[in-house]
Amino acid sequence: MTTLEDCRALDAQDPLRSLRDQFTLPEGVIYLDGNSLGVLPKAAPARIAEVVTQEWGQGLIRSWNTASWFDLPQRLGDKVARLIGAAPGEVVCTDSTSVNLYKVLFAALSQQKDTGRKLVVSERSNFPTDLYIAESLCRERGFTLKLIEAGELQGPGSVLTDEVAVLMLTHVNYRTGAMHDMKAITAAAHAAGALTVWDLAHSAGAVPVALNDSNADYAIGCGYKYLNGGPGAPAFAWVHARHANKFEQPLSGWWGHAAPFEFTPHYRPAAGVGRYLCGTQPIIALAGLECGLDTVLAAEAFDKDEGAMAALRAKSLALTDLFIRLVEERCVGQGLSLVTPREHAQRGSQVCLSRGEGAYAIVQALIARGVIGDYRAGDSQMPDILRFGFTPLYLGFDDVWNSVEHLVQVLESGEWKREEFNRKNAVT
Amino acid sequence: MTTLEDCRALDAQDPLRSLRDQFTLPEGVIYLDGNSLGVLPKAAPARIAEVVTQEWGQGLIRSWNTASWFDLPQRLGDKVARLIGAAPGEVVCTDSTSVNLYKVLFAALSQQKDTGRKLVVSERSNFPTDLYIAESLCRERGFTLKLIEAGELQGPGSVLTDEVAVLMLTHVNYRTGAMHDMKAITAAAHAAGALTVWDLAHSAGAVPVALNDSNADYAIGCGYKYLNGGPGAPAFAWVHARHANKFEQPLSGWWGHAAPFEFTPHYRPAAGVGRYLCGTQPIIALAGLECGLDTVLAAEAFDKDEGAMAALRAKSLALTDLFIRLVEERCVGQGLSLVTPREHAQRGSQVCLSRGEGAYAIVQALIARGVIGDYRAGDSQMPDILRFGFTPLYLGFDDVWNSVEHLVQVLESGEWKREEFNRKNAVT
Repeated sequence: MTTLEDCRALDAQDPLRSLRDQFTLPEGVIYLDGNSLGVLPKAAPARIAEVVTQEWGQGLIRSWNTASWFDLPQRLGDKVARLIGAAPGEVVCTDSTSVNLYKVLFAALSQQKDTGRKLVVSERSNFPTDLYIAESLCRERGFTLKLIEAGELQGPGSVLTDEVAVLMLTHVNYRTGAMHDMKAITAAAHAAGALTVWDLAHSAGAVPVALNDSNADYAIGCGYKYLNGGPGAPAFAWVHARHANKFEQPLSGWWGHAAPFEFTPHYRPAAGVGRYLCGTQPIIALAGLECGLDTVLAAEAFDKDEGAMAALRAKSLALTDLFIRLVEERCVGQGLSLVTPREHAQRGSQVCLSRGEGAYAIVQALIARGVIGDYRAGDSQMPDILRFGFTPLYLGFDDVWNSVEHLVQVLESGEWKREEFNRKNAVT
Repeated sequence: MTTLEDCRALDAQDPLRSLRDQFTLPEGVIYLDGNSLGVLPKAAPARIAEVVTQEWGQGLIRSWNTASWFDLPQRLGDKVARLIGAAPGEVVCTDSTSVNLYKVLFAALSQQKDTGRKLVVSERSNFPTDLYIAESLCRERGFTLKLIEAGELQGPGSVLTDEVAVLMLTHVNYRTGAMHDMKAITAAAHAAGALTVWDLAHSAGAVPVALNDSNADYAIGCGYKYLNGGPGAPAFAWVHARHANKFEQPLSGWWGHAAPFEFTPHYRPAAGVGRYLCGTQPIIALAGLECGLDTVLAAEAFDKDEGAMAALRAKSLALTDLFIRLVEERCVGQGLSLVTPREHAQRGSQVCLSRGEGAYAIVQALIARGVIGDYRAGDSQMPDILRFGFTPLYLGFDDVWNSVEHLVQVLESGEWKREEFNRKNAVT
């Protein structure tokens, strides 16, 4: 049996342990929800205050020049690029994940509009907002959204036929933590003549991503989960260089214009991914996002060859392996099942458990104890989920041990059956 | 001749004078560019710091409940509603002006798609990003964008024929400061069977707007100009109640879903203007916007019947009248022409001047003296513009006098001819 002392020994040997000093965490909280909203970088309050009081308050309109506001979406995009296997100049930080998905999916569908291909394929268990955007665009552009299970993607009888225009997948599933093989699936999609759109919401800052090496076509992702950019931080969009200058997205605002300050009456898209910008971006929110990105990039110091995500991935897997082992050692007979894949190559940076009853109440009871994970409701085809995200930047092996200790106590005491934990009034 | 002492006397009698205490202004600056980026409310740094350190840092994901993040777009929308003649529940604060224009113009075009009407009419001198978005949507949806001059809207030979699907106008022109008669033009558009989309970027917080009384159809506007919401603050969208539940916009993200936390795989639009929301919004930026909105709403105390904008309008006109009079008294023979209409009913809250040469350099020379206005380049049909915005919340009559004094000195000394002021390297 693994003990708390064993876990403390792992922390003592952990080369990344100092990275947690970059963050402010609430007292008495073990935060296993960085996959929903990342924690506050210590640098963020001062940097945001500087943007507010100096750049806005003192610089005013002059800060477009003196603080280089116009460069922010691409300058921050270059930082994101280092985390997702993209090149400088290929990423912009802007708008929300949903709005960016609309842009890139529109561009991908434009590319396929004369091929006769009419299907957009995605997973039934994809994040709902992605399906909503795809549903809308399919209706608008004359395509059909086909929802499948992950198992139908490869092998004989694959759904990747010559009818498929775009395969739109979330790399790491938000409910299960299962991770796709981006390179293999992209190759299969391309072999069938389809383009790929990848949502990296639960990947960027969580697992290594190799967009160019995978030969992917389009990708978008979230700034406020594993990138620690703050609530509602701007999202990002990436477009492969072979497509970037060829296709346009329809949200053709001034910031994506080739000469935005000429105020010409006709739109002319900027070269490259700059054309995926639209209107004026929230400068204060971008400052928060940059502080978050810097916390992840700090891990580059620990793997000078392979970069930040290689360094973080080893610890992420060690944390999730430990959590799985402790749950299986200590929660025997408590009705919990592992939903997340055991194989490393198929696992993101989270562990999901299911239980016949009480998933919601158990999560609430844990939150009341300061162990913050979250709950995702199931339906006729999917079980209710207890979801725990493990961010190697600020979690220790002791945190994993303590969170399982609380889980054991919640289950063995039956405290989750108390009425207060069963009221489903939570927004999260 | 009006003297500085006369202006100081006007300030001494100004009932709104105390409103300027709400703001932090840089030392030595007369800020005549609130129509490009509003100034910093004194309350903003502390409120933003609270959101960063407490709601994000301490509350983390729990703040969706405890800080009511989900309600922000509509709660702030209700504050905007009080400034634009809309009802509670009719406005959302979200995304950028350009993205919101895409949503409402799409909805308006959906309404007209089976009528055979194929024209979207707008002004040639409309703000370019509006034209870019319209250009894109027209191409996509099978409409034609027809650009006209303001004079072609009414009277015999009006362009408002039975071919017009949508009339899309900016209420106050960004270059000239000319204001449309929203009610009369909306009536003329409706008489012709067209819908109206109004951009309130230079109106909200600047002039009284009566959307419901004007019977307008759709409107959008900017949060960071006269609403003082901070650089890139979220914008807003309004939809008349008669349309709000009938039509959808295509950016169908989770925040616009009828039951966003049920995570259902199919999109079902929220009732009312809530369906004009899309993805996750920048919470920190929304906090800045609320501080800005509160500075304008503070003027409600000065006109309990007609509201904040009625109180502010009288002073705005007094400021712009004074500026025009002083320029005409003191800059005789300097080649300046008034571009902004003299008639109050046709004037926004800015004054624009043109000059055969040197407009850019004169603006730069003024900025070097701390008088911040801005320059807008002309073309074969429009002259170069010196643009001065007058925000009654924080400008005094003495500021108007001093700004004209600087203008006189810049012109009479010929200092604008110095090479440093003639280099066009500015982003603004």
